[in-house]
Amino acid sequence: MTQFQPPRGTRDFLPEDMIKRQFILDKARETFEQWGFDPLDTPAFEDFALLTAKSGEAVKDEIYYFKDKSDRELGLRFDFTVPMCRVVANNPNLPKPFRRYQLGTVWRYDRPGAGRYREFCQADIDIVGAPGPEADTEVVACACEVLRKIGLSNFYVRINNRKIISSFLEGLGVDAVSVMRTVDKLNKIGEDEVEKELEGKGIKKDDIKSIMKFAKIREIDRAVPLIKDDRGREGIDELYVLLKGLEKFSCAVEVDMSMVRGLEYYTGNIFEIMQRGSELTVTAGGRYDRMIEAFGGKPTPATGISLGVDRLVNFIQVELGKTGVEVYLANVDEKSREKCMELAKQLREIGVNVEYDVMQRPLVKQLDYVNSRGIKYAIVVGEKETKSGVVKLRNMQSGSEKEIEVRNLKRVKDVVDSE
Amino acid sequence: MTQFQPPRGTRDFLPEDMIKRQFILDKARETFEQWGFDPLDTPAFEDFALLTAKSGEAVKDEIYYFKDKSDRELGLRFDFTVPMCRVVANNPNLPKPFRRYQLGTVWRYDRPGAGRYREFCQADIDIVGAPGPEADTEVVACACEVLRKIGLSNFYVRINNRKIISSFLEGLGVDAVSVMRTVDKLNKIGEDEVEKELEGKGIKKDDIKSIMKFAKIREIDRAVPLIKDDRGREGIDELYVLLKGLEKFSCAVEVDMSMVRGLEYYTGNIFEIMQRGSELTVTAGGRYDRMIEAFGGKPTPATGISLGVDRLVNFIQVELGKTGVEVYLANVDEKSREKCMELAKQLREIGVNVEYDVMQRPLVKQLDYVNSRGIKYAIVVGEKETKSGVVKLRNMQSGSEKEIEVRNLKRVKDVVDSE
Repeated sequence: MTQFQPPRGTRDFLPEDMIKRQFILDKARETFEQWGFDPLDTPAFEDFALLTAKSGEAVKDEIYYFKDKSDRELGLRFDFTVPMCRVVANNPNLPKPFRRYQLGTVWRYDRPGAGRYREFCQADIDIVGAPGPEADTEVVACACEVLRKIGLSNFYVRINNRKIISSFLEGLGVDAVSVMRTVDKLNKIGEDEVEKELEGKGIKKDDIKSIMKFAKIREIDRAVPLIKDDRGREGIDELYVLLKGLEKFSCAVEVDMSMVRGLEYYTGNIFEIMQRGSELTVTAGGRYDRMIEAFGGKPTPATGISLGVDRLVNFIQVELGKTGVEVYLANVDEKSREKCMELAKQLREIGVNVEYDVMQRPLVKQLDYVNSRGIKYAIVVGEKETKSGVVKLRNMQSGSEKEIEVRNLKRVKDVVDSE
Repeated sequence: MTQFQPPRGTRDFLPEDMIKRQFILDKARETFEQWGFDPLDTPAFEDFALLTAKSGEAVKDEIYYFKDKSDRELGLRFDFTVPMCRVVANNPNLPKPFRRYQLGTVWRYDRPGAGRYREFCQADIDIVGAPGPEADTEVVACACEVLRKIGLSNFYVRINNRKIISSFLEGLGVDAVSVMRTVDKLNKIGEDEVEKELEGKGIKKDDIKSIMKFAKIREIDRAVPLIKDDRGREGIDELYVLLKGLEKFSCAVEVDMSMVRGLEYYTGNIFEIMQRGSELTVTAGGRYDRMIEAFGGKPTPATGISLGVDRLVNFIQVELGKTGVEVYLANVDEKSREKCMELAKQLREIGVNVEYDVMQRPLVKQLDYVNSRGIKYAIVVGEKETKSGVVKLRNMQSGSEKEIEVRNLKRVKDVVDSE
């Protein structure tokens, strides 16, 4: 072990891992842009007061906190939502809806453990200024499209609406926020434990029974008779539009009245995308209509969803390889190195990723390197090739070779792209 | 002014600015990959001890320092070179040459001022394990190619070699590092001030004269007779290969014996790419053969170059616009919104960036939005278009319209790409 390691909870991404991460980020960005989202970037750190203003106690403990040399209290961002709300509050004249994506790193001072890191890569989209469930539909459908492009097939969207849950719980006369916190643990700790915890919170037996019955509802229509106020009915309507909208985008959807979502700032529709089978949450989000106002902006509705890039890497279905280099030009002697550089120039111009020797190594060493780096194709360049104007493109895995005329190098690109 | 602003020395990148930054990053990445560099990512923060180990006093004061909750001393990275050397030291079996690029953010706690920020975006390439000047040539030529793709035309590469300067100064019997620090200021403070500072350092009149004469050398051949030892002659040979190599890549090159480059870790060829006229350094780097060893790795030569992305944004020659959205589908009524979503799906599938209304706004408001956001094309969709199967693609800037059959939407892509 050498002197210095990456700090606890962080890790390096060597090329093989970075190529996977970039695959996800490229698919996300391409999709986000096709769906009309524009890029935004914000600083890695923010005022500590901003980060802790609206995010609840749990997150507060997870922030990397530091002071700058003028004793300003700062913290590394733990999501992209809080900084974006600050940007919108600071720029009231941004055309609405403001549709933005943000790709990058966030930090949480979590307990590190198996597969849990303190630095991770996220891809977010949000629509700001659109109050209706059509905007919720849009962000969820767009996230589903990203997942499809990555290669996930067996996933579904779990949806619920905060207004429905609050309305029902307030109708019972119980502390809605406190009960929601407990119900949120249903999948983790199970029915019995949830009931026990609710008892501990002083909820009456009958109410616990009603709550558990409500939490098991999986169809909107069955929730309707239990909702008595306008706010709850608004939630029902919003959830219904989201459900129907997602079906139009061919997304599998399930209503789940037990779903609460941890973050305290959600105000309407909330959603999670689940990998069926593993029941792993791959993506999540919701509507948060009061946060921008809380940061000093005009009252502005907002909704968004967040993809955990590092987690999605596990679902990639295509073989990506250890390197982006497609063709290695191996020179037989120092003289043919010049020819390699010339060929490299032409190949790069037509978009082929090319490498040649910069270490004056003998041919055998160069080919060892090609194999150890996992480069798929090699062309050996010597006097013969220079004179004849014909090179052989060798597939280093299968051993097969194709003869290609130097004046027709476009064929190298075709072979590389096709196989 | 609202409650929260970006922390001092940082800024937000709204879509218009992010689109420019991404243009640079995309060109850099595309070029780096074509030239056989693979991506690497490292944590945003590192052990403070690592950051300060080899980087000299000046950088030490510029690091964002903090402690984590276990009292570990950490700091935000100020460049990509130090973390990469740690990675190479930790992974001795990486195939060599290890050619990597890294794109991302670095932080320096600089005095903020006009156009000076504490958080900036960088694009680096390095070749590790190749000792010769061919590798220096490769990184510089690749950086020049990025600059050309961005649209810079009038630039040149200033080169020098640390071995030559050291050899010459040590030959005089003066403190080479101390003198280099003063000579490095030549462009900033001028000849008279440099001479004064050297006098202040106790350098003899005759030696100052020799140093100033040496610093004015702009041709390798004129330096040769002044170099007396093997190390200096090695430097001459390396600089010569770099010069000739860059000329082969059609890069304008100037040897400049006054160029030193601030960072203390350079050991051989050093280079800066200058915008002619402004004489602004747009890119810089050099060879640093001893740093990996200093971090506990095997002795491993390395060379690299770094592009300041935020500075390069000023040199973009193409019009990039305020948004990535290419076509807005405006619906005449709620019924035709469905048709918009259907058309959007088809257009996105062929790679067109599309947006439609998610706010149930009347047509006039939708078109106001199209203009305020700077979207170039709009298609108005109503009953007529749905029935006839023909839509009009309107250029919102020129007012010109093109009729396009819905069964032939590929034409939308052609128009968008061609204009």
